[in-house]
Amino acid sequence: MSERRLVVIGGDAAGMSAASQARKRCGPDQLRIVAFERGRATSYSACGIPYWISGAVEREAQLIARSPEQHRRNDIDMRTRTEATAIDLDARTVRARELETGREYDEPFDDLVYATGSVPMRPPVPGIDAPGVYGVQTLDDGAALRAALDAGARRVVIVGGGYIGLEIAEACQVRGLDVTVVDRATTPIGTFDPDIGTFIADAVRKIGITLVLEDGVAAIETGPDGQARAVRTASGRTLPADLVVLGLGVRPNVELAQTAGIPLGSSGGITVDHQMRTEVDGVWAAGDCVESVHRLSGQRVVVALGTHANKQGRVAGINIGGGYATFPGVIGTAVTKVCDLEVARTGLSEAEAELAGYRFVTASVDSTTKAGYFPGATPIRLKLVAELRSGRLLGAQIVGRDNAAKRIDVLATAIWNEMDVDEILSLDLSYAPPFSPVWDPVLIAARKASESVEAHLAA
Amino acid sequence: MSERRLVVIGGDAAGMSAASQARKRCGPDQLRIVAFERGRATSYSACGIPYWISGAVEREAQLIARSPEQHRRNDIDMRTRTEATAIDLDARTVRARELETGREYDEPFDDLVYATGSVPMRPPVPGIDAPGVYGVQTLDDGAALRAALDAGARRVVIVGGGYIGLEIAEACQVRGLDVTVVDRATTPIGTFDPDIGTFIADAVRKIGITLVLEDGVAAIETGPDGQARAVRTASGRTLPADLVVLGLGVRPNVELAQTAGIPLGSSGGITVDHQMRTEVDGVWAAGDCVESVHRLSGQRVVVALGTHANKQGRVAGINIGGGYATFPGVIGTAVTKVCDLEVARTGLSEAEAELAGYRFVTASVDSTTKAGYFPGATPIRLKLVAELRSGRLLGAQIVGRDNAAKRIDVLATAIWNEMDVDEILSLDLSYAPPFSPVWDPVLIAARKASESVEAHLAA
Repeated sequence: MSERRLVVIGGDAAGMSAASQARKRCGPDQLRIVAFERGRATSYSACGIPYWISGAVEREAQLIARSPEQHRRNDIDMRTRTEATAIDLDARTVRARELETGREYDEPFDDLVYATGSVPMRPPVPGIDAPGVYGVQTLDDGAALRAALDAGARRVVIVGGGYIGLEIAEACQVRGLDVTVVDRATTPIGTFDPDIGTFIADAVRKIGITLVLEDGVAAIETGPDGQARAVRTASGRTLPADLVVLGLGVRPNVELAQTAGIPLGSSGGITVDHQMRTEVDGVWAAGDCVESVHRLSGQRVVVALGTHANKQGRVAGINIGGGYATFPGVIGTAVTKVCDLEVARTGLSEAEAELAGYRFVTASVDSTTKAGYFPGATPIRLKLVAELRSGRLLGAQIVGRDNAAKRIDVLATAIWNEMDVDEILSLDLSYAPPFSPVWDPVLIAARKASESVEAHLAA
Repeated sequence: MSERRLVVIGGDAAGMSAASQARKRCGPDQLRIVAFERGRATSYSACGIPYWISGAVEREAQLIARSPEQHRRNDIDMRTRTEATAIDLDARTVRARELETGREYDEPFDDLVYATGSVPMRPPVPGIDAPGVYGVQTLDDGAALRAALDAGARRVVIVGGGYIGLEIAEACQVRGLDVTVVDRATTPIGTFDPDIGTFIADAVRKIGITLVLEDGVAAIETGPDGQARAVRTASGRTLPADLVVLGLGVRPNVELAQTAGIPLGSSGGITVDHQMRTEVDGVWAAGDCVESVHRLSGQRVVVALGTHANKQGRVAGINIGGGYATFPGVIGTAVTKVCDLEVARTGLSEAEAELAGYRFVTASVDSTTKAGYFPGATPIRLKLVAELRSGRLLGAQIVGRDNAAKRIDVLATAIWNEMDVDEILSLDLSYAPPFSPVWDPVLIAARKASESVEAHLAA
């Protein structure tokens, strides 16, 4: 029996990537691994929940990359339906409670991975905790919402028009429900500039979703049975609802860490270094609950995204297992689809660039996804934000259809490497008429941005 | 009337980009621009010709980005059907001949842009110049081939299974012809490694094209009328043909330059610097006829591709117009589609990496274009070539469907920036289930390559 013990709190992407990587490098004779997960499922795609709700993904099991049983076969002592309720950093134990039996016990650790994810933001308004108000964070949340929809809900109000809000809105629309989305901003998904957001608003409305913008939620009204039955907005509108979904984004789930004395950063996430070590010796953290370095703003930020959670968990696990890996930060890349409209972003929006203290030019161009004369060519719009003088690319946004949005990755890679728009326009990108115009839209946008930078230099 | 005179030889992408950029910076009072083009059309998409032949593009005019008349309205004295027959570098004149009238005259220049493009390679075998043997380089070539097909050809033999060879083969197949492709290599498109080339061979055969590999052309047999009627191969096969298409690639069209004394490089293309200046004062060159720096091999290479021609022409024109721009070289990115199969490459193949003196590992991975559980997810294979020790990405190849191939641009951007595979796997690429698995295939491939590099270090 080995002496060294690893305990993982949280059985989804970050926690189980860490566990798997540690196991890959250390056999059971070297390291004992215990993982706690409050829910039923492990290693599932939370991002896939909207598509399960819409029916595009048929079975819940499809969302599960690795079941508890599979983890157990990998010599990980996976304990589902078990909640970690306290961490004692002096005794180096985690207090665990089996949800079904109520049994509690202390699990000792040498290394601890804290990977509790995030929780939906709940505005502090009357009725917000009423039955009939759903978050969509865990697979169990998704199952609950799906059951409520199956039970015959007709009218859904989504509070918040961010990525998850819109994805759930579309899923409900596909199911034939009457859907309303309320958002405070002038356009949905506030991380896009309003000129791009307008395209999103149009696409949302075009599929029949009611969009209430520049208005917030003031209260959830409940019926005599205590169930949510309407959303009252700040401007005084009453939006009847059989159920309400929270789509205001998430906050890191850090209560347990905070109580235990694991330091948080100013962003509200757990402070970690490049190896995913917290400030407490032998305690690691990864996923939605940690803060990351934003490579452009220089700020530490919380970005809840499965791709980061997987990478961070992998990094923690490799280091725990005696290897060396780092997570070098994020640049704010994101993509989503609203009906057939695709939108993507990377780096800083105009508002974010201003906040970070950059001076910049912007360039927007309209092009096509294939050569203009090629059958099936569709419009694509790119917007670039480039620093004055240096011409360094600070941000990019894309709106289009038919795989237009994935071009954002080229710009993300360019930003990562601190390229300026003048060099970007020289990039040797692939060209053939079925794939792009002879000047790829990315190059056209860089060319225009380069001209803007030059014009500013001359002025 | 201005004193300074620019003459452009070649009215397609490179030449007319140069002319347009020079015109943008210098009005007609500052610079007189005369452009010679042997054919009827200007600024057309040669890469689009196969799709015009197949019928996917309906009208020839769709391939023309800017007509002679449009150039004239931009104050460029565009002289089509006029061939430049000699350059006198001492007298600084170009000898021109009007093809229809036979009239010849000398046109004086201060600056000259040499942009004559390329010509199809013709193996020195009997019958190669017979009527019925077609190249597909210019729009006029395309029109001639199209006319021959319309006249009732049934059997087509394509000599050479490179990009153009296969694109023309598919176009003829779509038109219902009996198509055979002959190629010396073991798999088509020799710039792909054979393990990727096998997928291409399968796709070509699957649509009903006969593929004769590891065999070359020994002679074109002609009938009593002198017309090509069969291809005889090196191994002794006779492939009957109503017409023969040359798909062996192209060579730079440099005879005129060579005769005039404009220096060529060892690659056979015209030597130019980063500003697209030849070694002769005031003489510029751009497009398929010049050699470029390959940023990975360090060699100078000729790459005939519309996207480079456009960029190089732009660079020449900006510099002629008094601005400053450079063309920083190529990394060998290319993409094509064979039926619904997409293949793309960037950087060096295994064979090229060996030739360039690199030691390397390779990593091949199979993934999906969307999250595995998402409807419409299709397989994608990536192969990476990474340098030993440094882990620097040297090359990448992709095969797949449904916009799989365009992911090559991320890897091209990574190679351009000399990224190593370990850093590539940390890239903040966009993720949502309709667009990629939570680990994008690019990241999965980088992860595997990184593990290979690490394993070699440990060994």
